[in-house]
Amino acid sequence: MLELADVLAARDRVAETSRHTPLDYSHTFSAMTGADVHLKLETFQRTGAFKIRGATNRIATLPESDREAGVVTASAGNHAQGVALAASRMGVSAKVVMPENAPISKVKATRSYGAEVVLAGADYDEAAEHAHELEREEGRYYLHAFDDEMVMAGQGTIGLEILEDLPGVETVVVPIGGGGLISGIATALKGKNPDIRVVGVQAEGASSVAESLRKGERVVRDSVDTIADGIATRTVGEKTFEIIKQRVDEVVTVGDDEIAVALTTLLERGKTLVEGAGAVPLAALLFEKFDFDEDETIVPALCGGNIDMNMLTTVIVRGLVETGRYLRLRTVLHDRPGALESLVGILSDNSANIYAIQHDRTSRDVAMNDAEVELDLETRGHAHVEQVVTALEDHGYEVDVLV
Amino acid sequence: MLELADVLAARDRVAETSRHTPLDYSHTFSAMTGADVHLKLETFQRTGAFKIRGATNRIATLPESDREAGVVTASAGNHAQGVALAASRMGVSAKVVMPENAPISKVKATRSYGAEVVLAGADYDEAAEHAHELEREEGRYYLHAFDDEMVMAGQGTIGLEILEDLPGVETVVVPIGGGGLISGIATALKGKNPDIRVVGVQAEGASSVAESLRKGERVVRDSVDTIADGIATRTVGEKTFEIIKQRVDEVVTVGDDEIAVALTTLLERGKTLVEGAGAVPLAALLFEKFDFDEDETIVPALCGGNIDMNMLTTVIVRGLVETGRYLRLRTVLHDRPGALESLVGILSDNSANIYAIQHDRTSRDVAMNDAEVELDLETRGHAHVEQVVTALEDHGYEVDVLV
Repeated sequence: MLELADVLAARDRVAETSRHTPLDYSHTFSAMTGADVHLKLETFQRTGAFKIRGATNRIATLPESDREAGVVTASAGNHAQGVALAASRMGVSAKVVMPENAPISKVKATRSYGAEVVLAGADYDEAAEHAHELEREEGRYYLHAFDDEMVMAGQGTIGLEILEDLPGVETVVVPIGGGGLISGIATALKGKNPDIRVVGVQAEGASSVAESLRKGERVVRDSVDTIADGIATRTVGEKTFEIIKQRVDEVVTVGDDEIAVALTTLLERGKTLVEGAGAVPLAALLFEKFDFDEDETIVPALCGGNIDMNMLTTVIVRGLVETGRYLRLRTVLHDRPGALESLVGILSDNSANIYAIQHDRTSRDVAMNDAEVELDLETRGHAHVEQVVTALEDHGYEVDVLV
Repeated sequence: MLELADVLAARDRVAETSRHTPLDYSHTFSAMTGADVHLKLETFQRTGAFKIRGATNRIATLPESDREAGVVTASAGNHAQGVALAASRMGVSAKVVMPENAPISKVKATRSYGAEVVLAGADYDEAAEHAHELEREEGRYYLHAFDDEMVMAGQGTIGLEILEDLPGVETVVVPIGGGGLISGIATALKGKNPDIRVVGVQAEGASSVAESLRKGERVVRDSVDTIADGIATRTVGEKTFEIIKQRVDEVVTVGDDEIAVALTTLLERGKTLVEGAGAVPLAALLFEKFDFDEDETIVPALCGGNIDMNMLTTVIVRGLVETGRYLRLRTVLHDRPGALESLVGILSDNSANIYAIQHDRTSRDVAMNDAEVELDLETRGHAHVEQVVTALEDHGYEVDVLV
């Protein structure tokens, strides 16, 4: 089984391609939670995520013959870019197989880091199959994304950095997808100090570990559904599950809405972008998915920042809606002079700023001369949303809250 | 006139309330421009912007009687929050007058930093008038946002930090609104080393300095129009103009589209959020608004990160459109079986991913049985946009590019 010595041995190798990322005290999240919160900003890692650490350690410890033959892997995400940059920095040839529908930005980024991208298959499973064909045909080493001790050891260097920068850390909160990151970090931390608590976090729509732990065996989900695509896996690895069983204290889950709130709060208050998977530990902290004491020193590991900009705009709006700062509603305006003016007057009296207004006379749901109006409003929180809706209803409007 | 000694004297005072913000080498922007680019990340300053520096130095140097009477100012932006936190940290009472329509988030933030917020007036000018009334009635000290030497000296500490962290800096690029920031920074830098170049940047829709310099006197615009609300001023100050004349080497302008590209690029690649005004120096660099040599050591001063989250989503989409990664177009679908399928087929053949599709049969612009279709597409750059549009046209579609 993976041991602290493996992580310690990985340290110098990983430093060749990766940076020691900042650990920043967060005034905002400390004030919001009452804990002493320090953020491990792996979002500023090269390639924008932690995966380069594990890939580097794996490639650096391959026998010379494997390094000459090159590596191959399948991924449409951060692992692709991590392998690409790690390999090219070490002068090793890398092929990365991505599903044919992979986001353009990921394909481009992976190429720019020096890997050859092969587009094959309709989904991840088919891409992985093709990657295994290349493994056989070209004698390349198949670089697994998480279920490999040298990969886990590389990710575990994050734990060493946290301890170095903050020796008094009490709890570290880590996202779980395949389990490579938390296996490495937990091994590093528990090896140094068994009293440090390690909390794992999964997205509700991709959770399998809590149930697996209850049953004592790996549970595989039929499907996954979460905005945190970096941890959208149906199950954890075999090796990582054994480590999680022994070294992770607790595993909790968070919903997409909670992830959106955490991501938006960090962006708005901390000016820092993370991807969905990176926001997951922060969501677990904000929504108190695990117990903690006042002033407890807690480090959420924000594992990556690679989020599609269109997805980001969607997540931001969702984050605003969830915190009552964005209200979209529909109502009907009767066709008489000044109807819109009086509606707008009520909103103004209740201090709701109008972002957008859509007016539709052709809707089939309303009488011939009436018009359906959709309003996008800026509000100040849940109580204010309630106030605005009530004020409209008191004036006889039927209000349909859309989001 | 403001001198280096004033900035040096401000240093310890400013350190009481503000942090020495990071100066980070940017691999991304160095690779994109060929220069040696280091970002001054003032976006991570307390309150999210540099204004707290000047406010602190101003309050700290007031006579005891003024400090006892308290301060008053008018602002709907970063100055409000800077004054609020600086005053409360120094135990001085602060009233901040904001226009009645000020964004809720700004009102809330200013209150949370400890100031009393007074909502008065329909716009900034009326709010300022009310603040001057409070100055007279309550004997408070009116804290000007930029045209005050102690305020400029506070902002100038950014220049000292840049020099300390990067003694070999050759060019510093600074946004200009009222001119307080650049006056302080230029005074610090030129005082230490007259060979360091200082480039000022304004938004096109709020530019007045370049023309003022040509005419030798301050030009006042009738109006302003830019997404960079932090520098949306009609003119610079009297005192700041004198300093800019003597100590700023060059003043250039950037358009809103360029600002959107710079902001989006920093967010996507650097995982860091800045506001419009903060992105302006980066836009000037990216779009080569001033000459620079290969490997020249350049520091864009990213002065703040307080951007409304709804505005941010708009800016991101604009940034994607400008870089050819988002295409919105309208076309007409004739009413026959399979019409939509064949349209979608052409897009798929040309690797354009569909984000959204809107189908409208009721548009007055099309024949009775035809339908107007609006498509939001992910594209790979300007050449790809061209390819997609041409492919549709070759198949007989009339294409209207919307953004």
